[in-house]
Amino acid sequence: MANPTAAMLVIGDEVLSGRTREANAHHLSVKLTEMGVDLREIRVIGDDAPTIARHVNALRAEVDHLFTSGGIGPTHDDMTADGVAQAFGARLAVREDARAILEAYYADPGALNAARLRMARIPDGAALILNPLSQAPGFTLGNVHVMAGVPAIFAAMLEGLLPTIDGGAPVLAWSFRAAMPEGELAGPLTALAAAHPDVGFGSYPFHRGGLGSTLVARSSDRVALERAAEALRAMLASLGCTGAAETPPA
Amino acid sequence: MANPTAAMLVIGDEVLSGRTREANAHHLSVKLTEMGVDLREIRVIGDDAPTIARHVNALRAEVDHLFTSGGIGPTHDDMTADGVAQAFGARLAVREDARAILEAYYADPGALNAARLRMARIPDGAALILNPLSQAPGFTLGNVHVMAGVPAIFAAMLEGLLPTIDGGAPVLAWSFRAAMPEGELAGPLTALAAAHPDVGFGSYPFHRGGLGSTLVARSSDRVALERAAEALRAMLASLGCTGAAETPPA
Repeated sequence: MANPTAAMLVIGDEVLSGRTREANAHHLSVKLTEMGVDLREIRVIGDDAPTIARHVNALRAEVDHLFTSGGIGPTHDDMTADGVAQAFGARLAVREDARAILEAYYADPGALNAARLRMARIPDGAALILNPLSQAPGFTLGNVHVMAGVPAIFAAMLEGLLPTIDGGAPVLAWSFRAAMPEGELAGPLTALAAAHPDVGFGSYPFHRGGLGSTLVARSSDRVALERAAEALRAMLASLGCTGAAETPPA
Repeated sequence: MANPTAAMLVIGDEVLSGRTREANAHHLSVKLTEMGVDLREIRVIGDDAPTIARHVNALRAEVDHLFTSGGIGPTHDDMTADGVAQAFGARLAVREDARAILEAYYADPGALNAARLRMARIPDGAALILNPLSQAPGFTLGNVHVMAGVPAIFAAMLEGLLPTIDGGAPVLAWSFRAAMPEGELAGPLTALAAAHPDVGFGSYPFHRGGLGSTLVARSSDRVALERAAEALRAMLASLGCTGAAETPPA
């Protein structure tokens, strides 16, 4: 059975301009890999509601889960809820459960001004994603999970969300850090990959302490993976490349 | 006159799986912003030729320049040249100028094996992008610039490429780091943004040393930008928020 699939949509002019170094995509990719969800694509786009709606509709049709980050704060450039509501043709309005969360958070009743109330706007039909840090919630609408861009808040929201999502067979990996350039391993590695169709093989050059290659074998099938690791070890030995640092599956 | 536009396509299973933390997108975004090229979108996809071809065709039609990174090494999982050639319907074969570069690099003639010769495969009609580090070249085909994924090589290729591309009016930015939460600035900021249509305003929360907001005004028009900065300063003063750290345009 194939693993569930996912995509991510990062929303923020500040990422495209280089002002902000994006971090949530890497965090999400590690978490999804651990639980056997196959992340197919990441997109970064700007803070514009029609653009957001277009990409939400393109991506949600292609995968089981679409995760978004960014653009759900109180300021005029936070357009994600508008874009997602537009994508679904859903009404977007302040919802009482979201307002109650914010009312409880802001001790001074005057503090919940019009700008902050923007963060209680939830599309009709959505379920809230709780925010244990600054309280303003995200939401799930259909297969789209809308979360904050601030990394600590994104991570906290995700921690609550992921246990509600079905995972797949986690992908296990064996990794070999070999002191031999990719160009000398590539031929035998291609043959080996062809002989082990249930295992994915990757090769990544490194330059620290001389030119070398990290060879990675990945599979959800532990038996097939161990067979591939054995074959990789034999291949390196036959090339006279000994002493590769091996990292077994976690 | 509108600035030239760009998109980036990052190609690599290792980024989607979380094995590798992507760094080239941020580097490119900073460089493009400096030269007044408007980066509209970044996509990260896996090492699969038909998928690469599909995204290359979607993005190259939307922007003036498409930059790719990753997937041009010697191993079986390096599929970018195949995908780009497929997108253009161009023949992909070892080209003599690219082969000559590799022959000069590998002192031992036996070292230029079949795997390494894959890196001399260039689509018909493409111009080479030189690689001053490990020599294996990238290429430009139409408005698509194909570069390596290793960050040092990507940066070196880009350094040679960018001077050949027309820039636009660089976007200048004033930034104010204010000790006031976004929710209290958002209302006045919305009004200010409406009054300065030639300037883009962004707001980014921070949590270090208490809750605060970085307000950023951006424009290619220096006069309009200075007017907006003056108005932002007055707005902060009227809210009793003094002592914001100001960063003028570079």
